[in-house]
Amino acid sequence: MAIRFSSTLEAIKGSDLGPLLALTAKPEVISFAGGLPAPATFPLKELTECAIKVREEDGAGAMQYGPSMGFMGLRQAIADRMNRMYGPMGMDKVDPQHVMITTGSQQGLDMVGRVFLDKDDVVLIESPSYLGAIGAFALNQPKFVEVPTDDQGMIPEELEKIITTTDRIKFIYVIPNYQNPTGICWSLERRKALMDLVTKYEIPVFEDNPYGDLRFEGDEIPPLVSMDPKHLVMYSGTFSKTLAPGMRLAWLVANDEIMAKLDLVKGSTDLSTPCVTQRECAMYMTHYAFEDHIKDNCKLYAKRRDAMCEAIKKYFPENVKCTYPHGGLFLWVELDESIDARKLLLACIENNVAFVPGDSFFPASKKKNYFRLNFSYNDEAVIEEGIKRLGDAIKNYKA
Amino acid sequence: MAIRFSSTLEAIKGSDLGPLLALTAKPEVISFAGGLPAPATFPLKELTECAIKVREEDGAGAMQYGPSMGFMGLRQAIADRMNRMYGPMGMDKVDPQHVMITTGSQQGLDMVGRVFLDKDDVVLIESPSYLGAIGAFALNQPKFVEVPTDDQGMIPEELEKIITTTDRIKFIYVIPNYQNPTGICWSLERRKALMDLVTKYEIPVFEDNPYGDLRFEGDEIPPLVSMDPKHLVMYSGTFSKTLAPGMRLAWLVANDEIMAKLDLVKGSTDLSTPCVTQRECAMYMTHYAFEDHIKDNCKLYAKRRDAMCEAIKKYFPENVKCTYPHGGLFLWVELDESIDARKLLLACIENNVAFVPGDSFFPASKKKNYFRLNFSYNDEAVIEEGIKRLGDAIKNYKA
Repeated sequence: MAIRFSSTLEAIKGSDLGPLLALTAKPEVISFAGGLPAPATFPLKELTECAIKVREEDGAGAMQYGPSMGFMGLRQAIADRMNRMYGPMGMDKVDPQHVMITTGSQQGLDMVGRVFLDKDDVVLIESPSYLGAIGAFALNQPKFVEVPTDDQGMIPEELEKIITTTDRIKFIYVIPNYQNPTGICWSLERRKALMDLVTKYEIPVFEDNPYGDLRFEGDEIPPLVSMDPKHLVMYSGTFSKTLAPGMRLAWLVANDEIMAKLDLVKGSTDLSTPCVTQRECAMYMTHYAFEDHIKDNCKLYAKRRDAMCEAIKKYFPENVKCTYPHGGLFLWVELDESIDARKLLLACIENNVAFVPGDSFFPASKKKNYFRLNFSYNDEAVIEEGIKRLGDAIKNYKA
Repeated sequence: MAIRFSSTLEAIKGSDLGPLLALTAKPEVISFAGGLPAPATFPLKELTECAIKVREEDGAGAMQYGPSMGFMGLRQAIADRMNRMYGPMGMDKVDPQHVMITTGSQQGLDMVGRVFLDKDDVVLIESPSYLGAIGAFALNQPKFVEVPTDDQGMIPEELEKIITTTDRIKFIYVIPNYQNPTGICWSLERRKALMDLVTKYEIPVFEDNPYGDLRFEGDEIPPLVSMDPKHLVMYSGTFSKTLAPGMRLAWLVANDEIMAKLDLVKGSTDLSTPCVTQRECAMYMTHYAFEDHIKDNCKLYAKRRDAMCEAIKKYFPENVKCTYPHGGLFLWVELDESIDARKLLLACIENNVAFVPGDSFFPASKKKNYFRLNFSYNDEAVIEEGIKRLGDAIKNYKA
């Protein structure tokens, strides 16, 4: 007998992106690859105060096992904030009973995949879509169908065509705000059109909203969860981009039927997200100026976005296109079709600069002439130098 | 279209134990049901110091994304401790590269289940075995085969018979130290016999060791991982019983081939366990008297075990048998075969006392005349009062 893994784990060999990106870990490489928040945005002084207070006020509670759905104080604070923000936009009141705390939004993606997907079931995604979601869902071996998407979101006519001609659709996965990888924000019309179709055909939707709070300009566009008469939307939010990813705290909102299944998985997956970090986060949300903190983050990130876009204008060849995101952490670059972004990355690593090549974000179409840039992590001077190196590599690219 | 879940989640309706145990959550109920450490054992002052120091020394590192395998400082401290403890017993040196940090040992159970199991694959378990492991593995719909087990561990002749006559065995799951639910500790001979068979037939073993550190008396018996020439043992340890379960920190040790699969799942499951709690734990392990702390815990728990065993002698009918564990958190009660422990629990809840009925620990044989008692959480006076109530309920039981 030898070690035999499950059929899924025998089939999935793991991304070849990991080894490639491992090459970029040298200190001399300017990396635009990760999705890291700027460390300067972590409210360390306040979070340390919260850590102390939580341990002083109810240390035994913080250090004990807790409920699988999460610490009620945090679930309540999240429900209150969502009701304050989206209630006026038409969202039905969120009860904390419908909020589950997850260990990062990645865990929410993983659990939703497990709850819905059998092998060869279908997930509809934007084209391109977030590779971390694709990777999590892939552990169940579904088929990904990329819905044609432009700079306003999924195209409703194309989506309806796919819905009416495709079997075994289990859910639609979308990131309407400052999408990963493109940075685009869905228009109100497109959101309404999606929710009209979802409501008509009764298809669950995963609304992943990690970047909605990082809005640099313009008015907030109502989330899908505010246009959801049949409660088909599973909404995910996270503290990783607004507070600190090292705390691994995010949340899911879903209807009773779905939440019962998620809770069953959650209890078997890790019993619960750590109680102590949940309490620290609840303390921060209720005792500190969370909204002001988010505004400060946005100011910093808007400056870095501007620095990156200006450097791109200066250093990239004219035929390279890129998005101009009004929020989030990423922008998206379209190269001439003759350029393979993976090959370009190898040249860039020689040039001490890195990005994520785009093909991983297109699980079906595998388009090769795109890449993703992160603008949140590096400061303006480093951004300019990195984009200069990248521009040189593009200019010198040989197929 | 309506919401349709995965075939597994449609099949698994969730334990009926949850609603039953929810009835025990009233403050007037003395509960021996949970596996909760005594809050008095949490080293709150020291953990608060660690929380502050970690944030002062490298707060940005603690609050940022971290590697999926875990914080190297903690992995190193765990490898060092295992090498110190089990190296002299014959364990091959554990390199931190083979240590992965998990969000509680429950996550290790879940990941190992996902990595190995397809529907109808076979897991060999002790009879009875831990219900949390059974629940985690069940998310992959395997078959559980209970290997006949006595107060020394699995019976090797029975195990070999099963190995040689059963298809699709993926791994053997055992808790050799102060097992959950029985509290029994495998003898050295039985450990050697198991590992001889495992080595002969090359079957992976999951050695779950949450209670090994909670040894009240006697010498430590070498773990399976110290008798493993072919590196077939996946070893799991946890800080939940020695430090604080609210931090949700545990670890897995496995060979390269298995660890590569686990790491693939870990990255998609939650990216990583929270960096900040990992660093706090590493700080505690390397700067505080962890071993002395564990000894203090053991003294407290031994007293509570004694209080429970003495109360059982005093208040239970003579034909009730129970184990006398030399460590851990639980003891195991065998009732007359005419008694159904679930029915007894309903009577007990009326009497304001609770336990976990045994049938959930026997996924195949579903034996009904057993229950599990936790002795770590309640103090001696409460234990005596609870056991008295329980004794009354047993005496007054009507089928």
